[in-house]
Amino acid sequence: MGKAPEEEHPVKAFGWAARDTSGVLSPFNFSRRVTGDEDVRFKIFYCGICHSDLHSAKNDWGGSSYPLLPGHELAGVVTEVGSKVQKYKVGDRVGVGCMVGACHTCENCENNLENYCPKMILTYNNVNHDGTMTYGGYSDHMVANERYIVRIPDNLPLDVAAPLLCAGITTYSPLRYFGLDKSGMKVGVVGLGGLGHLAVKFAKAFGAVVTVISTSPSKKQEAIEVLGVDSFLVSSNSNEMQAAIGTLDGIIDTVSANHPLVPLLSLLKSHGKIITVGAPEKPLELPVFPLIMGRKMVAGSLIGGMKETQEMIDFAGKHNITPEIEVVPMDYVNTAMERLAKADVKYRFVLDVANTLNAA
Amino acid sequence: MGKAPEEEHPVKAFGWAARDTSGVLSPFNFSRRVTGDEDVRFKIFYCGICHSDLHSAKNDWGGSSYPLLPGHELAGVVTEVGSKVQKYKVGDRVGVGCMVGACHTCENCENNLENYCPKMILTYNNVNHDGTMTYGGYSDHMVANERYIVRIPDNLPLDVAAPLLCAGITTYSPLRYFGLDKSGMKVGVVGLGGLGHLAVKFAKAFGAVVTVISTSPSKKQEAIEVLGVDSFLVSSNSNEMQAAIGTLDGIIDTVSANHPLVPLLSLLKSHGKIITVGAPEKPLELPVFPLIMGRKMVAGSLIGGMKETQEMIDFAGKHNITPEIEVVPMDYVNTAMERLAKADVKYRFVLDVANTLNAA
Repeated sequence: MGKAPEEEHPVKAFGWAARDTSGVLSPFNFSRRVTGDEDVRFKIFYCGICHSDLHSAKNDWGGSSYPLLPGHELAGVVTEVGSKVQKYKVGDRVGVGCMVGACHTCENCENNLENYCPKMILTYNNVNHDGTMTYGGYSDHMVANERYIVRIPDNLPLDVAAPLLCAGITTYSPLRYFGLDKSGMKVGVVGLGGLGHLAVKFAKAFGAVVTVISTSPSKKQEAIEVLGVDSFLVSSNSNEMQAAIGTLDGIIDTVSANHPLVPLLSLLKSHGKIITVGAPEKPLELPVFPLIMGRKMVAGSLIGGMKETQEMIDFAGKHNITPEIEVVPMDYVNTAMERLAKADVKYRFVLDVANTLNAA
Repeated sequence: MGKAPEEEHPVKAFGWAARDTSGVLSPFNFSRRVTGDEDVRFKIFYCGICHSDLHSAKNDWGGSSYPLLPGHELAGVVTEVGSKVQKYKVGDRVGVGCMVGACHTCENCENNLENYCPKMILTYNNVNHDGTMTYGGYSDHMVANERYIVRIPDNLPLDVAAPLLCAGITTYSPLRYFGLDKSGMKVGVVGLGGLGHLAVKFAKAFGAVVTVISTSPSKKQEAIEVLGVDSFLVSSNSNEMQAAIGTLDGIIDTVSANHPLVPLLSLLKSHGKIITVGAPEKPLELPVFPLIMGRKMVAGSLIGGMKETQEMIDFAGKHNITPEIEVVPMDYVNTAMERLAKADVKYRFVLDVANTLNAA
């Protein structure tokens, strides 16, 4: 048997973890490694709550190992750097997203696509190079190789910067890679949650005309008035959907609940693209005729590489793109998870770790 | 009621047509329009038998209107041209593929993508601009707007040129559009029939390393020795499939029978692409995790535009790419259809129209 989590490493750490498939989180003592030569250690100020934290805490996708300490949208301030660290110094404002390691030798790693490396190490519920488990950002501090550290632009407050590190890059990367970042493009966004509302903001910043496709008519007014959405389709309204057939160059689909592809394929122009970044558990039904008749495509995309993540957050700083968030204390995390399951949040919960973790 | 097919137009025509969903073809008297200003009329020498001819004759996809005269791989010699025709003269060797008209004003038409025009007119079982039905190439002659006429390179015999006009362009176009036409690419081809064997030949000509994925072990030897395939995977052989995981940049999937996508997605490298050109009647199951984890995509593609069709056949002429065919007489067509349904052909039937139609 290995050592207990709080005795594995020399540096004491504290956070909240799920202990079983109930997904309920509670205080958890563990430990982190000493700061290696290429490592950056930082005090966590804020951590976003991603929908996948909820799936992982409850083992919805399988593969969860308990205790499971979630959180992959970390923002904070550097407290220590290793001897070989070049890009960061104590006091820098930094963050960590969904990953903390990869092989650094494969073709994807060489192309700055660590996110597609088969040996990518996730920020939590994964195994470090030394065989110990990774623990996420619902905790007092973090240590990671500097390759996985992102510099947060001076004008972005840490609380709004945090969700950019997963929700932001997850939507920014496919808009770029699949060529939906050109001015005048007609871009659809399915689902207006943490991911969707950032997809809207990035697409608008690229100059796109943005259509939201949602099951919730109640979100329409705010989408248009606050987020600047150009058009809002309620997916159950067949008149609205019919009128929009063949109008979109591409769609970012952020919905992880199972849903039909056919109506979305219909919204595309010829040569249009659906990129799914949500992860439905069951296979989707893919009708082939509409694909062939319009040379359409359905693709997936997973976060982004570290180089692109830095580009994304620099772009967000320059264009003042920030998520809409609700900051909550650490001991509210289980209530926040319940509300997230009901989509009762505008649009991202962020844990106020620095001010409330010790008080828990 | 409209006029009978043989009285609709001034010019008498003769071919073989299906009369009902049995799909059985029999001799059929009909008529074609006079040669318009922009029209080219040609005597049909050969016509390929495409699998979709069989589907259409039997109304497998719905929408068949009888009498139905199939054939969209026509090759022959010009007998008359309209006063405004610029590119062709009597005696030229020409062909017609899957379409004979489109709107010529939409964005797709303006981009030489008549094949994705919503008003595209198919070569048979479709409605002409004048409201009459289109009849295909299992017939003595054809007349079409010169935009839809393809010049056949001098070095390509008419019988082998015919299948290039559907099977050829259907596989050439996605290899080009989806970037699988670079030397050294690892390209998979699913199904080794009329389409698949031409996909192999074009991919090899582009310099690709080609893997065939087939249900038929019996096709292996010929695939490697005759077609020059580099690797042959029997899809039911889990060892072979397992060993090839993550090796392909892209796959051209020519199979119209329902089949699972998951094993094919597994064969792709990160950022790999499956392009389906067959048309399964039922939706395929699309698992989302493999798409996301490797930024993979599934797309469709439909023949090609007229400009690209000319490029394709010129490329075929230059590189001596010709289909493997079995030339059969007109009165063999029903037997050929039966054999085609059993995949009992290497690799394309071509009807010897000029020598055998009148004898029927």
